[in-house]
Amino acid sequence: MVIVMRDNATADQIEAVEEKIRASNLRVHRVDGAIRTILGAIGDPSNVDIREFENMDSVLNVVRIMEPYKLCSRTFHPENSIIRFNGLELGSDRIIVMAGPCAVENEQQIYEITSNVAQAGATILRGGVFKPRTSPYAFQGLGMDGLKIMRQAADEFKLPIVTEVLEPGQIDLMYHYIDIYQVGARNMQNFPLLRALSNMDKPVLLKRGMSATIEEFLMAAEYIMSGGNYNIILCERGIRTFEKYTRNTLDISAIPIVKKLSHLPIIADPSHGTGRREFVAPMARAAVASGADGLIIEVHHQPDKALSDGPQSLLPDQFQRLMEELKVIAWAIGRTI
Amino acid sequence: MVIVMRDNATADQIEAVEEKIRASNLRVHRVDGAIRTILGAIGDPSNVDIREFENMDSVLNVVRIMEPYKLCSRTFHPENSIIRFNGLELGSDRIIVMAGPCAVENEQQIYEITSNVAQAGATILRGGVFKPRTSPYAFQGLGMDGLKIMRQAADEFKLPIVTEVLEPGQIDLMYHYIDIYQVGARNMQNFPLLRALSNMDKPVLLKRGMSATIEEFLMAAEYIMSGGNYNIILCERGIRTFEKYTRNTLDISAIPIVKKLSHLPIIADPSHGTGRREFVAPMARAAVASGADGLIIEVHHQPDKALSDGPQSLLPDQFQRLMEELKVIAWAIGRTI
Amino acid sequence: MVIVMRDNATADQIEAVEEKIRASNLRVHRVDGAIRTILGAIGDPSNVDIREFENMDSVLNVVRIMEPYKLCSRTFHPENSIIRFNGLELGSDRIIVMAGPCAVENEQQIYEITSNVAQAGATILRGGVFKPRTSPYAFQGLGMDGLKIMRQAADEFKLPIVTEVLEPGQIDLMYHYIDIYQVGARNMQNFPLLRALSNMDKPVLLKRGMSATIEEFLMAAEYIMSGGNYNIILCERGIRTFEKYTRNTLDISAIPIVKKLSHLPIIADPSHGTGRREFVAPMARAAVASGADGLIIEVHHQPDKALSDGPQSLLPDQFQRLMEELKVIAWAIGRTI
Amino acid sequence: MVIVMRDNATADQIEAVEEKIRASNLRVHRVDGAIRTILGAIGDPSNVDIREFENMDSVLNVVRIMEPYKLCSRTFHPENSIIRFNGLELGSDRIIVMAGPCAVENEQQIYEITSNVAQAGATILRGGVFKPRTSPYAFQGLGMDGLKIMRQAADEFKLPIVTEVLEPGQIDLMYHYIDIYQVGARNMQNFPLLRALSNMDKPVLLKRGMSATIEEFLMAAEYIMSGGNYNIILCERGIRTFEKYTRNTLDISAIPIVKKLSHLPIIADPSHGTGRREFVAPMARAAVASGADGLIIEVHHQPDKALSDGPQSLLPDQFQRLMEELKVIAWAIGRTI
Repeated sequence: MVIVMRDNATADQIEAVEEKIRASNLRVHRVDGAIRTILGAIGDPSNVDIREFENMDSVLNVVRIMEPYKLCSRTFHPENSIIRFNGLELGSDRIIVMAGPCAVENEQQIYEITSNVAQAGATILRGGVFKPRTSPYAFQGLGMDGLKIMRQAADEFKLPIVTEVLEPGQIDLMYHYIDIYQVGARNMQNFPLLRALSNMDKPVLLKRGMSATIEEFLMAAEYIMSGGNYNIILCERGIRTFEKYTRNTLDISAIPIVKKLSHLPIIADPSHGTGRREFVAPMARAAVASGADGLIIEVHHQPDKALSDGPQSLLPDQFQRLMEELKVIAWAIGRTI
Repeated sequence: MVIVMRDNATADQIEAVEEKIRASNLRVHRVDGAIRTILGAIGDPSNVDIREFENMDSVLNVVRIMEPYKLCSRTFHPENSIIRFNGLELGSDRIIVMAGPCAVENEQQIYEITSNVAQAGATILRGGVFKPRTSPYAFQGLGMDGLKIMRQAADEFKLPIVTEVLEPGQIDLMYHYIDIYQVGARNMQNFPLLRALSNMDKPVLLKRGMSATIEEFLMAAEYIMSGGNYNIILCERGIRTFEKYTRNTLDISAIPIVKKLSHLPIIADPSHGTGRREFVAPMARAAVASGADGLIIEVHHQPDKALSDGPQSLLPDQFQRLMEELKVIAWAIGRTI
Repeated sequence: MVIVMRDNATADQIEAVEEKIRASNLRVHRVDGAIRTILGAIGDPSNVDIREFENMDSVLNVVRIMEPYKLCSRTFHPENSIIRFNGLELGSDRIIVMAGPCAVENEQQIYEITSNVAQAGATILRGGVFKPRTSPYAFQGLGMDGLKIMRQAADEFKLPIVTEVLEPGQIDLMYHYIDIYQVGARNMQNFPLLRALSNMDKPVLLKRGMSATIEEFLMAAEYIMSGGNYNIILCERGIRTFEKYTRNTLDISAIPIVKKLSHLPIIADPSHGTGRREFVAPMARAAVASGADGLIIEVHHQPDKALSDGPQSLLPDQFQRLMEELKVIAWAIGRTI
Repeated sequence: MVIVMRDNATADQIEAVEEKIRASNLRVHRVDGAIRTILGAIGDPSNVDIREFENMDSVLNVVRIMEPYKLCSRTFHPENSIIRFNGLELGSDRIIVMAGPCAVENEQQIYEITSNVAQAGATILRGGVFKPRTSPYAFQGLGMDGLKIMRQAADEFKLPIVTEVLEPGQIDLMYHYIDIYQVGARNMQNFPLLRALSNMDKPVLLKRGMSATIEEFLMAAEYIMSGGNYNIILCERGIRTFEKYTRNTLDISAIPIVKKLSHLPIIADPSHGTGRREFVAPMARAAVASGADGLIIEVHHQPDKALSDGPQSLLPDQFQRLMEELKVIAWAIGRTI
């Protein structure tokens, strides 16, 4: 932390700031310039609220100089992390594709879609059973019954399952049926949920909040890691911008930025990131071209009849075509899919 | 819902859209203009995803024409709602002030601050015992022990208590100690929490999410009301904008807008809304001048030593001075405080 | 500027950064901590692009510690600036109200409205003659002919005029007819226009850009001041947020923030800031309560027939009523109007 | 335009709205539903301000159903537009790359860089001579002298030139030296500039404003087209988001959205879009993968000594490597470069 004093700060005022720094268990390093004095606060500032210094009349400016996260930082772990589960590796050269319906609706639907996506080359089955819906009057998911039929379909095609968990009370119930817990964008800062997942021995797919900065996104990962669960897969799923034509704006640039700041793998969700079927393929291609470690894509064989998010679901043959395109893009940047 | 067809839409394409409208249990009203055809879909569209129509090639544009919320709408309930509890009325001519520390820290602290705010004219005691913190390494609150000492202090000065609930599992534990449940900005769309609170017989103070639109804010209130709990107090607490100088930007205009769209009372939180002590008073005055039904303000007698958010807490004498200023502003607009 | 080196930076890498600092005509102040080295760059960094350092592999973080503006800063000029023109003072205890139509439409219209606003207590006449319109097909203003009839009406009621200038070529043409040049939100960073106004001896009303930070707003003022024109009146007119119910979101908090950072006076535009008549009065009251030095308000006697922005114009009697309310609010905070 | 009446609207109130519709030269189409009445306004609504209707007490909601732009819409011109100049085609299968320094600095610099980018396969030379800078104290460009030496370098390597124009007064001066006029992000809504360019017979590269919606972006193109200049190249160059790690966030999704709504070609600027050299290549690859018709990239042989934006400039060998990567991506999606 660096504290810049105002030009007209008196010796007493500077002394008061120095004392406050020491009271925070930090050492003071003082630089007297021609015009003003600058005070460096040396040590671990993670428990200091910099606004305390900003509020002092004699202080012009306070700047934090350290990242607030540790475990998920590339400084802490320079190599890429590879998340291993069910014989798969996420974060290696092979790009992993998760696919399936927005919501599990019934046995026939999930079986049909699982068959389609497995055949097209998806390696993980996605599907929601607890659905966070903006309206209390909308379909809220089949719950544990849905999860059980999803498990059967997944087993039939030997695919691991990723599905969303909404509250701490669901974690244990879901444990034996799932392979990856998904934390949705609205829950990125649901701290009780993050804390509860930090004790689990299964990977967590953590979606970026709709208006979260990348630092906040990484701090949410830090929450889970701080409890001992290091198997985090980050997921860019679109941010809120002023654009009204699409639901969200898929932030492709988050992919190379996260790769620089953190060792954790990151995937992209072009289905929620755009909200419209016709934009899923170009954005999936862009995500892979920019370095994403995977994709999560909604597929539905009867999107018109889907109980949620049909309009952003690819048809099975569209998904298959996309997988073909992605193979060439992956090859172009030295990866496989 | 109104669907605008493209200029070159064929008769078959128009027919396909009409059929899809009817398949959604809506009636079709067709207008053939000189250039293009417009189809009105008459009935209750709340279970229709308009993107289904947007995805059709022959469709130029789809517009929703109804508010998605009902119970919290002024259409449904034209008069202002007044929330009654502990002999108080929130939403009437008298402006209600909730005050207290960000977090309950110990018996002496909460007693001291409660004494101060009661004397200055606050009518409700605020204070956090379960704290949602961005960093897993920061102070997380005293939990139920904190709530019990807060209750004692509140009883001593005959003040009701408002405090934040973070997850469904805490609701029953807290019930006998609190008067108003607070839902924080990060939990505005924590649907399991909203649903659980919808069964309770105590009021809920619902804070607006950091980047929520007013429609989303009202939909969150609708979630709680849809379960039967109509005692909602809305709270504007600052939105995220591009401005970096303050943590958030208190959106004063949300106050008259909510008043127009909904019958629910709305208060403002200038402490979180600005994040800095020096801006609390001007923004509190602005909120009252614009029509807020109340305020929630952080006060601490030793903000330098506060375990959280000290920099945005008023000192007791600053709070007292603010209460005096607010009396005159309230009087200027025909209210009391 | 402070440069934080990575933990594993070698002696050579640190030396390379030090050399680069010196090459920028800055002195190096080095602090070797237990974990990492921090380099302070002492001197005037205004010509240094901090990203040059951020791009170096051995560098973790670079932070700028100085405000980029000088002349408009309160550090440079601690007292409030008072802008004087036509016997008026803007920035003193008396709150100044500018009022008039969005656009000058014809002689009768501007005469009628000027009469109304003068009678209600407005001290400056506003009105557009060069209109920046989003659509090329919309009414673009009467130009110099409109300005001339506006001047006649203003003279009749002894009011100074403020009107918008769109491009450098208009400045001289307008000079003899206006008292204050207005720079619109879309032109806040039209640098040729700012530069041209910096040579003029008439005040400039500078509106904040729709998504400008306060620092960028002040930098735009700095542009004008750097050429010698210190008579700047800042104007908060609403920022773009995610809210769709109003055109813009009037950022009331910008008022106390600007007052803290700068000595320049600031006024608010609740007409453009909300875009709807019904919200103008509550937001005007809020602006005054928060410390604004003035207001600029659209008034039209026949808003239904206005050629632009009728829906956000107050009727004359609404304006008169608002002026009465504002008198009481001004009095409550120790000012007059 | 569709106007939804409130449930309790009286016959008189509905009649008043109908009259107002007719007064706007529109025809009324009335639908009486079970609960409420809906009024369609048939005709050209481009001169109607929908807020006029929103302001009426009996009106619940007003929705615009038409795009406000015409000439740039795909409805108007279903085929892709191809911009032709100097023997090049922009908008066809071949992806066009514009490259060069941020600013022209001197003869030797522009010659050196032009040589490099020509050799690597760039087909257009970029370089600024009038620079819009946030600070009045920063380098403002070499002006016409810079343009002349840029022309010489370009001629030597047979490349057309694109460079930014800041104000109407520069258009004629620049005419004989340039091939494409560039309108910068800050000037996207500088209407006098757009209008002046609408009379020229050279193409315009129009950059998206920093917080512009795509509709506003297309309306700016419409401004230029409305005067007769149809040769517009759109350019996505990054929008403002909450992310602070990069200057801007390159909005890749704007590329497929613009392609859907408009027939105009669109290119991407990953240099300004990220502000940091290390992210230019991944984002350039993403832009091409998503369907961009071209790229504009900053290249500098001595970025450390660049007078502006060195940190976002690629080194010549980085640019060459990127061109190789892009060839494979282009091939993967059936295009060339």
